[in-house]
Amino acid sequence: MTASELQQIQELQRAGGPDFKDDALVVRRKFEEVLASLPVDPALTFETRTFNGIEGIWAEGPAADSPVILYLHGGAYVVGTAHGYSSLSGGLAQASDAALFSPEYRLAPEHRFPAAIDDALDAYRGLLDSGYPAERILVAGDSAGGGLAAALLVAIRGNDLPQPAAAWLLSPWADLTLSGETVESNAEKDLLLDKEGLLKTAAYYLGGQDPTHPLASPVFADLSGLAPLMITVGSSEILLDDAFRLAKRAAAAETSVRLEVGPQLFHDFPLFGFMLSEGREALSAAGDFFRSQLISAEQSLNV
Amino acid sequence: MTASELQQIQELQRAGGPDFKDDALVVRRKFEEVLASLPVDPALTFETRTFNGIEGIWAEGPAADSPVILYLHGGAYVVGTAHGYSSLSGGLAQASDAALFSPEYRLAPEHRFPAAIDDALDAYRGLLDSGYPAERILVAGDSAGGGLAAALLVAIRGNDLPQPAAAWLLSPWADLTLSGETVESNAEKDLLLDKEGLLKTAAYYLGGQDPTHPLASPVFADLSGLAPLMITVGSSEILLDDAFRLAKRAAAAETSVRLEVGPQLFHDFPLFGFMLSEGREALSAAGDFFRSQLISAEQSLNV
Repeated sequence: MTASELQQIQELQRAGGPDFKDDALVVRRKFEEVLASLPVDPALTFETRTFNGIEGIWAEGPAADSPVILYLHGGAYVVGTAHGYSSLSGGLAQASDAALFSPEYRLAPEHRFPAAIDDALDAYRGLLDSGYPAERILVAGDSAGGGLAAALLVAIRGNDLPQPAAAWLLSPWADLTLSGETVESNAEKDLLLDKEGLLKTAAYYLGGQDPTHPLASPVFADLSGLAPLMITVGSSEILLDDAFRLAKRAAAAETSVRLEVGPQLFHDFPLFGFMLSEGREALSAAGDFFRSQLISAEQSLNV
Repeated sequence: MTASELQQIQELQRAGGPDFKDDALVVRRKFEEVLASLPVDPALTFETRTFNGIEGIWAEGPAADSPVILYLHGGAYVVGTAHGYSSLSGGLAQASDAALFSPEYRLAPEHRFPAAIDDALDAYRGLLDSGYPAERILVAGDSAGGGLAAALLVAIRGNDLPQPAAAWLLSPWADLTLSGETVESNAEKDLLLDKEGLLKTAAYYLGGQDPTHPLASPVFADLSGLAPLMITVGSSEILLDDAFRLAKRAAAAETSVRLEVGPQLFHDFPLFGFMLSEGREALSAAGDFFRSQLISAEQSLNV
């Protein structure tokens, strides 16, 4: 990251980041405008597809038998759309030589927990039903979508469905109680997120339900028996400790986990991959991880 | 890891692991016999070389201009030799397309802290003086050698020398106070190490000096300004939390860090790479990490 890249991005963040302390619908509209300004590779073509009743965006993979990424977008469970995040999810799909399905899961405050996790699980079932074997499915998500992706793996286990080949969690928001130590220690460094705003969106999402529910805050979940995880996070985030706690809990539960911390990097930094080399490198590392886990998943079927 | 691989290894561990509660010199002799039984790739040829007065083993890289790995062997600061660990260090060098220098740093109880770190730093200076630019040097180590490798980076910074391109820490012992939470929580799972034994070797090494000295226990060091780190650890180790605490502290200090936890794997598992696929994969991942960091180090010189 050059100094000028960082400065450009910080200006964008100061100008356009969502202020979750505003009214949810106002934030949603403003945020979608920011997302719409992120360039999408013209080589990517998206169409609308529905799996098991869940609508989302679809991009073909490079081959007829490409694996598929089930991508859960960020936005604190309140804002964001699959379409808005297609610069990021499409970049990941390209880096992974995979097809992409990113569902428009229902958002709060109109739809409370567990609407989002129900939709994610239905989408996963839909991919299975459409003929994708679990070992050719990859799960990924950023921010709230990263927490939702971890929760999805827990829900998959709880519903006796087969785990996907692997999951990539980018800057996961995995604790709706905001109890991570970096919520305080990184408060000054983090220009994008703040505790007050996230507590507000958590309240929209939970509508009075328990914030420590394992499918709402997977840092409190039993993470045993899950697909191999890769977690990517920036060192400047208030959510840095969510990543560490998820990794620690996964390790304690004998789930394979890899954690990468990018120094001086901010929440969801690969969203700026179009202008930030570290963002492109993170997507490329996630793609390499997915490719190697697809091979492992196939091999373990043949043992 | 198949069930039979794991069983074979566990039998080896139960039969031959060092019991650090025995007399240091007895442990040293027995342990060297175990190490001598580990097969070394016949394609590797080692010779004795001395850099800046520090003797060690040397293996050529595949090319005249190959980078070099400075490898610090494990053995709780009391046992082990560069030669004894050449199966592991040589495998890493091959996976990294690098030359290898592994110094016979002085051991306790004959030579107390900071003898080991002094020798490691002298060896690093020796490589620099012999014409290796810092950006073509990689630092690595396992167990006590992993802690020593982290301490070496801190000492390099403290002596105003340039950082190497990257460092790989395998199952690092980075806290001589044994205060990590997995020292207790993984005590049953860990067949190789126990708190009492390590406290004994720490006492040999420290000879009454402060166990929280940052060059003795780098979990307590300022980890800012260090080369990018990759840490590999097994989930069954009592030292799992040393790896997590090093990673967390590196992240807080804006040092690039990647942590990989192998499920159901034990202390220093790539030492058994000759019979354990996870061991070979860990060396291969470390080699990939080194290659990509060598490119980054070269690029950052050209900015």
